[in-house]
Amino acid sequence: MKVIGVGLGLIGGSMLLSLRRFYPEAEFLGVDNNENHLKEAINLNIIDKSAQDNDFVQADLAIVSIPVDISEGILNEILNKVNGNCLVIDMGSTKRSLCESLAIHPKRHQFLAAHPIAGTEFSGPKAAFSSLFDEKTMILCEIEKTDPKLQTLALECFQKMKMNIRFMNPSAHDVHMAYVSHLSHISSFMLGKSVIDKEDDERNIFDLAGSGFESTVRLAKSNPKTWVPIFKQNKTFVVEALSKYISNLEMFKNQLETEDFDSLFSTLTKTNKLKEILDGIK
Amino acid sequence: MKVIGVGLGLIGGSMLLSLRRFYPEAEFLGVDNNENHLKEAINLNIIDKSAQDNDFVQADLAIVSIPVDISEGILNEILNKVNGNCLVIDMGSTKRSLCESLAIHPKRHQFLAAHPIAGTEFSGPKAAFSSLFDEKTMILCEIEKTDPKLQTLALECFQKMKMNIRFMNPSAHDVHMAYVSHLSHISSFMLGKSVIDKEDDERNIFDLAGSGFESTVRLAKSNPKTWVPIFKQNKTFVVEALSKYISNLEMFKNQLETEDFDSLFSTLTKTNKLKEILDGIK
Repeated sequence: MKVIGVGLGLIGGSMLLSLRRFYPEAEFLGVDNNENHLKEAINLNIIDKSAQDNDFVQADLAIVSIPVDISEGILNEILNKVNGNCLVIDMGSTKRSLCESLAIHPKRHQFLAAHPIAGTEFSGPKAAFSSLFDEKTMILCEIEKTDPKLQTLALECFQKMKMNIRFMNPSAHDVHMAYVSHLSHISSFMLGKSVIDKEDDERNIFDLAGSGFESTVRLAKSNPKTWVPIFKQNKTFVVEALSKYISNLEMFKNQLETEDFDSLFSTLTKTNKLKEILDGIK
Repeated sequence: MKVIGVGLGLIGGSMLLSLRRFYPEAEFLGVDNNENHLKEAINLNIIDKSAQDNDFVQADLAIVSIPVDISEGILNEILNKVNGNCLVIDMGSTKRSLCESLAIHPKRHQFLAAHPIAGTEFSGPKAAFSSLFDEKTMILCEIEKTDPKLQTLALECFQKMKMNIRFMNPSAHDVHMAYVSHLSHISSFMLGKSVIDKEDDERNIFDLAGSGFESTVRLAKSNPKTWVPIFKQNKTFVVEALSKYISNLEMFKNQLETEDFDSLFSTLTKTNKLKEILDGIK
């Protein structure tokens, strides 16, 4: 088997490292528009060597993990280049616009829209590790549009990683992600900004911030090159989620200003049910 | 040495367990208005037995770790009861109002306003553990108002835990905490609420939420009985911090709606400097 990774950062690099465990005979090639990342990926044994343009026609599997604002164009090109048996999987965080743009591609049946729910606040090949996806959720969109034989190959790969597969339409995917992922990132980024704005003397943040602050702003370390394109692609649902979040914060502020502590208490108590929900995630 | 813990939850329980390591000969007594917590604290070896009213006159050290809306009254009573050599330390999360209310107490010099920057989202004696405060920051307010001999006892205790001591006036403490702690909790609670409001079918939260969401809403599991009084006591500064946070979120939403992605990118990149700040915390 010949596998080509397009984009060798946290997600792409981890997916190749993970596949290497189960397909040790396979050849792993890669491309990345960042020359340093390409060299790092070779040094870190993520890929055997860089892929040339003519490698695509021989590939059995292409794993595309690149910022979502450029993935439509690049996936279109890759589908044009590959042979008729190659499976092309996109790993991006938004799905609606991408699936629409590839809907009438003649090789649509060789494409699979996937989104692994796994990641860290770090980026680049050095952040990649082989167990990132083990036992995590993998969302697959419009799987019925993918050729059955290629569906089998994809499921085989993800089942080897013991991933929990879920099937979903691209719009449902995007709206849910706006709430459970994209909004968390905005909340964290703006919390970080509010504290930096206030605390000119950074020493105060160092000393006074406990693990609670650290946990809440962890995502504010995320790479803007990844996240601005996600917010852009999922603008409609992100604006909806953000508006509701702001309304809830306004409600909290109003309850505090008017000293309606009973309502405040009741709101926080209801939110505590996240305990059980989150314990279910583990 | 005779130590009395008033409030035997996460903070009080952990402080007593921590002190037991360094003062194994000392006697540890305790009170808690929750009968079950009192029993648990005895079973968990946090205290040797419950403290009676007449134990206070023999105590050398009282550690008060109770919700901040009742601490003013109770600290006033405890100071009235203790002998002239006993040190009374409050561990609460707000300091301005408390220090004002005790300013003219005849035993003000036996009181120390402290705030350890450590905790978890859990509460009660079962959540307590002896190393919670090791190498964490301890903020002490108005230490110059505490008797020098009693200052020495307090510093000895906290230095044994290898805590980093910082001195601060009560108002500065409250304003900084509004930003680096209280705001994180509100952000997390309201994020949790926004997602619960949207996701009627909880299964979607289970499956789609990754570690990012989990980290960002961790604090939404916190106990409202602890946190509503903190928001109430620190209302002025919390409303200020929350207003600035909402403004930043509105700015983000506006930049997204008007597709001003350059500004969005620049905002997030500046916030990334939290990386270095947070790495400094560790």
